[in-house]
Amino acid sequence: MPKPSRQTFRGGFPMNTATLLKAMKKILDPSRIVHGELERRLYSYDSSYLSVRGRYCPDIVVLPRSTAEVSKIMAFAYGNGVPVTPRGAGSGETCGCVPVRGGIVMDLSGWNTVEEVDVHNMQVLVRPGVVHSRLNDHLARFGLFFPPDPGSTRMCTLGGMVANNSSGMRAVKYGTTEQYVLGLEVVLPDGEVIVTGGQNCRALKNASGINLTKLFVGSEGTLGVITLIRLRVWPRPRARGIAMACFDKLEQAPAAVLDVYRAGILPSGIEILDESAIRAVNLYRPEINLPSAEAILLFEVDGNPASVEWEGQMIAEIMIKNSATVEWSTDPQRMTALWQGRSVVAAAASRLRPDGTRVFAGEDVCVPLDRVAEALRAIKDLGRKYGIAVVAYGHIGDGNIHTALVIDPDNPDEVSRLDGLVDEIHRLAVNLRGTTTGEHGVGLVRSAYSLLEHGNALERMRQVKGALDPRGIMNPGKIF
Amino acid sequence: MPKPSRQTFRGGFPMNTATLLKAMKKILDPSRIVHGELERRLYSYDSSYLSVRGRYCPDIVVLPRSTAEVSKIMAFAYGNGVPVTPRGAGSGETCGCVPVRGGIVMDLSGWNTVEEVDVHNMQVLVRPGVVHSRLNDHLARFGLFFPPDPGSTRMCTLGGMVANNSSGMRAVKYGTTEQYVLGLEVVLPDGEVIVTGGQNCRALKNASGINLTKLFVGSEGTLGVITLIRLRVWPRPRARGIAMACFDKLEQAPAAVLDVYRAGILPSGIEILDESAIRAVNLYRPEINLPSAEAILLFEVDGNPASVEWEGQMIAEIMIKNSATVEWSTDPQRMTALWQGRSVVAAAASRLRPDGTRVFAGEDVCVPLDRVAEALRAIKDLGRKYGIAVVAYGHIGDGNIHTALVIDPDNPDEVSRLDGLVDEIHRLAVNLRGTTTGEHGVGLVRSAYSLLEHGNALERMRQVKGALDPRGIMNPGKIF
Repeated sequence: MPKPSRQTFRGGFPMNTATLLKAMKKILDPSRIVHGELERRLYSYDSSYLSVRGRYCPDIVVLPRSTAEVSKIMAFAYGNGVPVTPRGAGSGETCGCVPVRGGIVMDLSGWNTVEEVDVHNMQVLVRPGVVHSRLNDHLARFGLFFPPDPGSTRMCTLGGMVANNSSGMRAVKYGTTEQYVLGLEVVLPDGEVIVTGGQNCRALKNASGINLTKLFVGSEGTLGVITLIRLRVWPRPRARGIAMACFDKLEQAPAAVLDVYRAGILPSGIEILDESAIRAVNLYRPEINLPSAEAILLFEVDGNPASVEWEGQMIAEIMIKNSATVEWSTDPQRMTALWQGRSVVAAAASRLRPDGTRVFAGEDVCVPLDRVAEALRAIKDLGRKYGIAVVAYGHIGDGNIHTALVIDPDNPDEVSRLDGLVDEIHRLAVNLRGTTTGEHGVGLVRSAYSLLEHGNALERMRQVKGALDPRGIMNPGKIF
Repeated sequence: MPKPSRQTFRGGFPMNTATLLKAMKKILDPSRIVHGELERRLYSYDSSYLSVRGRYCPDIVVLPRSTAEVSKIMAFAYGNGVPVTPRGAGSGETCGCVPVRGGIVMDLSGWNTVEEVDVHNMQVLVRPGVVHSRLNDHLARFGLFFPPDPGSTRMCTLGGMVANNSSGMRAVKYGTTEQYVLGLEVVLPDGEVIVTGGQNCRALKNASGINLTKLFVGSEGTLGVITLIRLRVWPRPRARGIAMACFDKLEQAPAAVLDVYRAGILPSGIEILDESAIRAVNLYRPEINLPSAEAILLFEVDGNPASVEWEGQMIAEIMIKNSATVEWSTDPQRMTALWQGRSVVAAAASRLRPDGTRVFAGEDVCVPLDRVAEALRAIKDLGRKYGIAVVAYGHIGDGNIHTALVIDPDNPDEVSRLDGLVDEIHRLAVNLRGTTTGEHGVGLVRSAYSLLEHGNALERMRQVKGALDPRGIMNPGKIF
């Protein structure tokens, strides 16, 4: 039996788990309610380091499987001022799906049906729990794909991707999730169900009305619960190719990227491994044997076969002009080999220090393209200052840098130094006219920087939230 | 001297032109205030037919040239409940910039500086009055371009494009304006200035906070005044090609479009001329001599030279398989010739009836791709039912159909029949799971259909507007 917790929610009166449980049992089959203490603990974290350190346990977890169920749960929560935190796979890095004020966690990961592939209209309708890679496997049968490509593809859900406006490697050419969301079914905080993008619409363009769709994209569960997603999908490109370029000097890499853009080429991905990442990969998998360099760039180009060949040759020429050694391939096996360094770098990061653990904190800054080299050098200096190993890689095509910080989490001194380092990384990014987060979002872990980033616009975000969630029950404690 | 008008605005007390004039003179140089009766009349219309029929004259027109001036004007208007309607070139088709409740029109068309081309970060900062074609001429020097391509390119302003989320011919591949807006400076109804997308940010991606940027895009001047626009721009493609395909049966055209998508090709534009448009073009310019057909498709592909050649050949093959006759060219002169039919169709429409005038009403529906042929046939039937000539063309790649309606505007009976026809065209689009507007927006002319399109989501749009504009002074009478 769960030990009853007693919380005073925003509604103003205390409610214990037993009362919540009773109410949820009127809405849901008991098999879709989680209330045991241990099971609830499983919902107290995501992939962020902060969630490991915190103790943010929900009072109850519900697993709805229909819009009607979600609506009833929200109406109850709204009436009683109980916080609700929607959750997908928990692959986020920001505590976004962690219930920092307790209340209800709504686990949508099991609600994972692809409702319809509308081939004739180049769109797909999915429930929030559909996993990204599963969607693309499904779409491949129709010659279609959903271009955004997060690193967590085999885990993250479409609901989470929309809520966080996820992107990943292919944003250079294909943009972020937002660009593909044509419409949403959303359950609002008070339980009302709306459809954005036209209540019955299947058009590919729609200029009617205030764009609520895009307001919900990236709102991190603070405005409502997404229950159905209408996504534009694209024809699958027929060909791809990979180029790997190695640079003696870090600064040459962003300059070479700009030259590629100037040549009229938009690769589907441009990734960087800096010297620390190269070292980590070679320690982790010596057989990959990346050449020693201050930076390696990996380009992926896709499109029709003629285009891929043309762009590959052109990229190779540009790299040579920028003093890099370069290899270009369209052979599937060789492409996999060339890409291998990038594939394993996240896992390899910890190897820089065999007794350490990679933690996700300050891992997602994004700076202007012309500040990337400066940012990477400064972050390395900060790592030295705080005595913490930093492995840097990421989506250089957008200026989005992933910094893997490796610490011994059992050493309180290191943890305290980590906090200092993360704070400085975040402030550095804003000072370089970048942002603390290029793709992972704010959640709880970056909310301290929202005012720094947005100034007085933050209050206006709050007003917009207040219009849709006047009682502040949707994922409270996040963003603001 | 202007005849003083006396209006009771939302602020609750009457204000005449003289009082408004006095207040504006404290903020602006008199040369940037328009108050003569005749001059004010010039601000009573846009390109919509409705504005020609209405009498929506502003009480005063102001031409601010700085954010500080806009802010002071808004603060005054907010304090006194005076409506404010921002205006660019007036090329809209929806009465969007027409002051249906009087008050202040803010003409931003002269505030037209390109503030900065940030080549290294692939972005540009412009004031709202910059004309679209002028921006692209300017960007061409840097090998860059801003992809959305409205028909009014030589006239429309960037401020208007952002406010209406404009698109045009290239949306198939490049999306709408929204996709390129990285951040905005906006003066809110109460005069406060905010910067969206990060107050000092130059990054290409930013996942921080509720996305106010995208909320303002397409909000048609109902939430605030856009005073600076930060746009992502792209490398200019090196090559382009045009294919023209002629079909005996209308239904073959959308089927052929889908086959092109299925081949993994995203043309930069796919345009259709139906039989009425072909006839109109041949009457207007017999030397163009379009072949007689039920439909002509025009494809534009762009990219690197190898890609363009590959896609052009592939499109030609697909057209032949779909029983079309087809011509493909990358020769600049021949491309212009092939495209000529599309270029002149808007001007040609009136020729279908030499005593008639083309009016912009019901001109912008968008339907799912698989309903395009059905929509075109139904619209033609409706034209016959109401005895009004209809010329149909448009961006078939998105299902966005432009219907040119040709009437004698001095004949009240025809005008009344026009109203019936336009209403049925709008309802048809929604019934076919489309929208009344694919790109031109709602404004006043389509506000009667907002509830039909959005259902209960409309009230939520109103709530969001209310949060930012509690006194309802920004472009009142539009959308809702």
